[in-house]
Amino acid sequence: MILVLAKIAVKKGKSNELLDISKALIRKSRIEDGCISYNLYSDVENEDLFVMVEYWQDEKALNEHFETIHFKNFGVEISDVLAKDIDLDKYDLGELL
Amino acid sequence: MILVLAKIAVKKGKSNELLDISKALIRKSRIEDGCISYNLYSDVENEDLFVMVEYWQDEKALNEHFETIHFKNFGVEISDVLAKDIDLDKYDLGELL
Repeated sequence: MILVLAKIAVKKGKSNELLDISKALIRKSRIEDGCISYNLYSDVENEDLFVMVEYWQDEKALNEHFETIHFKNFGVEISDVLAKDIDLDKYDLGELL
Repeated sequence: MILVLAKIAVKKGKSNELLDISKALIRKSRIEDGCISYNLYSDVENEDLFVMVEYWQDEKALNEHFETIHFKNFGVEISDVLAKDIDLDKYDLGELL
């Protein structure tokens, strides 16, 4: 199982735009074969900071996710909303028990 | 390094109460020796769901955290706000590089 924590920082006042842009990504990612869960959270102390918490069955599922149209579209649409590059931490949690 | 994802579900309408109760916990946890980061996030699709994302230097630091007064106080204060037990995932990410 793979855990991904994607930390997202948006420009001042752009949080609603991020929420709109993320809806399609979240909906379509959740129905991908190897997706266990895919949730977006907002930092309670700073409305411009978010984390996407994603659990994937394995590395293959995650790599396929990166190749999907909805993921690539997200990358394009979010580019002018981001304050800096998305900080993606990826952890291999071993076999899915 | 230890990563903790503590998923918190509160009763309907109790999210502000959780935010208040968490302030002291967050402030005091961040100044503990082995605490790398300690942040509370709110689920953008459900205001009653939260995740505390915590990075600890090692298991010893986390165990000491569980014994602190501010952690134990949090457990007492949050008990009647919780919709169900906190779901705590703990991952050993190996040596802090």
